[in-house]
Amino acid sequence: MAALPPALSDTIVALSTPPGAGAIALVRLSGAAAISLTDAVFSGKTLAEQPSHTLHYGTIRDESRIIDEVVVSLFRAPNSYTREDVVEISCHGSDYIVQQLLLLFTRHGARLAEAGEFTKRAFLNGAFDLAQAEAVADLIAADSQLSHQVAMQQMRGGFSRELKDLRARLVQFAALLELELDFGEEDVEFADRSGLLVLLTEVRGLVQRLLRSFELGNVIKNGVTTVIAGRPNAGKSTLLNALLNEERAIVSEVAGTTRDLIEDEVSLDGIRFRFVDTAGLRDTTDLVESIGVERTLKRVQQAAIILYLFDLTDTTPAALQAQIDDLQLPSSTPVLAIGNKLDVASEEEIAAFRARPNTVLIAASRGDGLDELRQVLLSRVRGEGLDRAGSSTIVTNLRHARSLESAALALDAVLAGISSGTGTELLAADLRQALAALGEITGEISSDDLLTSIFTQFCIGK
Amino acid sequence: MAALPPALSDTIVALSTPPGAGAIALVRLSGAAAISLTDAVFSGKTLAEQPSHTLHYGTIRDESRIIDEVVVSLFRAPNSYTREDVVEISCHGSDYIVQQLLLLFTRHGARLAEAGEFTKRAFLNGAFDLAQAEAVADLIAADSQLSHQVAMQQMRGGFSRELKDLRARLVQFAALLELELDFGEEDVEFADRSGLLVLLTEVRGLVQRLLRSFELGNVIKNGVTTVIAGRPNAGKSTLLNALLNEERAIVSEVAGTTRDLIEDEVSLDGIRFRFVDTAGLRDTTDLVESIGVERTLKRVQQAAIILYLFDLTDTTPAALQAQIDDLQLPSSTPVLAIGNKLDVASEEEIAAFRARPNTVLIAASRGDGLDELRQVLLSRVRGEGLDRAGSSTIVTNLRHARSLESAALALDAVLAGISSGTGTELLAADLRQALAALGEITGEISSDDLLTSIFTQFCIGK
Repeated sequence: MAALPPALSDTIVALSTPPGAGAIALVRLSGAAAISLTDAVFSGKTLAEQPSHTLHYGTIRDESRIIDEVVVSLFRAPNSYTREDVVEISCHGSDYIVQQLLLLFTRHGARLAEAGEFTKRAFLNGAFDLAQAEAVADLIAADSQLSHQVAMQQMRGGFSRELKDLRARLVQFAALLELELDFGEEDVEFADRSGLLVLLTEVRGLVQRLLRSFELGNVIKNGVTTVIAGRPNAGKSTLLNALLNEERAIVSEVAGTTRDLIEDEVSLDGIRFRFVDTAGLRDTTDLVESIGVERTLKRVQQAAIILYLFDLTDTTPAALQAQIDDLQLPSSTPVLAIGNKLDVASEEEIAAFRARPNTVLIAASRGDGLDELRQVLLSRVRGEGLDRAGSSTIVTNLRHARSLESAALALDAVLAGISSGTGTELLAADLRQALAALGEITGEISSDDLLTSIFTQFCIGK
Repeated sequence: MAALPPALSDTIVALSTPPGAGAIALVRLSGAAAISLTDAVFSGKTLAEQPSHTLHYGTIRDESRIIDEVVVSLFRAPNSYTREDVVEISCHGSDYIVQQLLLLFTRHGARLAEAGEFTKRAFLNGAFDLAQAEAVADLIAADSQLSHQVAMQQMRGGFSRELKDLRARLVQFAALLELELDFGEEDVEFADRSGLLVLLTEVRGLVQRLLRSFELGNVIKNGVTTVIAGRPNAGKSTLLNALLNEERAIVSEVAGTTRDLIEDEVSLDGIRFRFVDTAGLRDTTDLVESIGVERTLKRVQQAAIILYLFDLTDTTPAALQAQIDDLQLPSSTPVLAIGNKLDVASEEEIAAFRARPNTVLIAASRGDGLDELRQVLLSRVRGEGLDRAGSSTIVTNLRHARSLESAALALDAVLAGISSGTGTELLAADLRQALAALGEITGEISSDDLLTSIFTQFCIGK
């Protein structure tokens, strides 16, 4: 067995369920002494004599004082989450009892677990790779069907397998290049350059596809801030309510520091949209005078998408464009113009906007056009070619995206090198770098600092 | 098997750990279909074929979609909390996943559990009596060693056994009285009146002791509001800090709506004291003018104990009494006069207060006299004869106290009846009432309304 960091020899303990009063709380121990530590305070069967994956009722006592009646779950190494001996104690969901249990176990020699330490041990003990470990945190944070699905796929190793395939295909050529270096004086070419070129181009394409998926992945993980702007009485609140009422997703209303800034979240087809209603934009000439309105404007600037709502019955195309221009948005921010009151507008008023690009006509009060609006929003977010999202891997993690970028750069260097007839040594160095960048994602190549920065983002007890 | 209320035939499901993100969440099912319902969505071993008290790893799926990787705990009737088949699903601690699991199980035929329904089933299925069931909720809410200890003793049946003993001793006599009624015409006395008198007097004394313990029980459960009043510079804040710093208990500072009202909690010898610092009382002539000060005064009126702090070096006994009288406290509120600055006071100043009753002399800045103050506080709260708190039963539940009061009244009526030679019929009726009142506590006599009112105070999932 390889030498492990000293911390791994400790037995760790933590509350693994959320804090607060509830029916049940789980206190989890992991490590070589997990079972003996529990036996020392548990009145019931002797756990050391029980088989793995069994449940045992009894009491936990501090000397003669009963701390709680509990059910103990026993998992013997390596058939546990961490691959170590694990004991889970299911006690009454009281903070006082949990505190007493943690005090008792630490007094008997266990150490309070750091954030993410159970999952870190699982990774270090080979239960899964780094990308899978990171997906555990994503899974816990997932709050929509799509974010859940992407995290689940990553946790179950889908992304890791794809990366492993990519690396495996590169490794063979890398080995041949290294061989050439060993025979450097003799100027041989073991690795067929044209075959390498084909392979590299293909791998580069796959890396690019993964990188492109990050745009969607980020949206899936973090949601899309969609600001509804427009003049008063354009029907912004009606639109907001219509978008929310149609959906059965959990809706939360958060009043911001500015009273006029209302935020609501809704999940469309598994993607979380945070709609921001910006009543403060009603009078653009007064904007700069108020800090509150400044905030609204700032929010508009940060928006991923702007829905600019206007009243079909009192707006000309020229006036609409002037109003949108007044917002002084960054050119990269997509603006969808939403013409409201389709139900009462005249044929002429409607005709004036029919052909306008990036425009959707609706009757918010009746719900007309909302389905189209949702589809336009979704396709905006998903971008081109990402309709296959459901079936292919989506990168959601910034760290992974950065590693993929490094890999892409290194692969580009190899490709350029082959085309220009660069020497084997440089080619091999660049290819090594590409392999390292890909290996960082799954943790085949990792540092203590990296692991610490990843696992401290976990909650305690995971 | 006796006919059960229809609800008992359902299989119920609920989240049993606190909501929110965490490492682990537990979803619990109980009922005849708990195992088959889980098998329908669980990919792993067939749970129906597994023995009780075993753990099984697998996935929960909605058709082909994986909701989570889980560990399932299997408890077969009657060896479970509810005495029914119970399945506990340990999943990732995500509200989204929990929501999906609950939707899945309800779609397959489970019903969302009502608050306290698992414990209600345990009671209805005879796992424990009503007083024990109520102690489960107390145990979860317990936040000090003493409240925990009292709830644990009650949950483990200590109180119930005591009540059972009392009832058993009465039942025999009650049966003899009923027998006399059957032979009513013949005017016989099967029940020895003098023996009954001795027994009743003893039982009445035990009921009285239990009733007296409620005063302490209430304090143990709900804490003691202790208001620190006094003139400015008497050293109130120093005293507050000294009382808090000496203790290692968790201290929380809640600034009230009035800025001058600071509350802090500390646990003394297992009893929770909520100390309220009332700076607002500094100028009694201005009090009524301010709403904020009115609140302070109101708080003083509601206090369980007043600590009136005064400066030994600038107060005469007459002035002190005048200041306390100015507070216009209810005569039932105990006031402890706390003479501060013992370290700098002259012999004469100290001597003036040495003999004053209900007075403790301290030097808050040095901590002198604080131990005595704590002891005085504790003995005030515990009252006379309650030092045996640790070893004897303490009633903490208002419902129990009311039933004990009813029992006491009925017993008094029996006692009075025997003394005055009342007829058997009235004696028997009063004794039945006493037995019924005692039986209400443990649920031997209970109504649906009573059960509903008790269990709806539980959290969901318990």
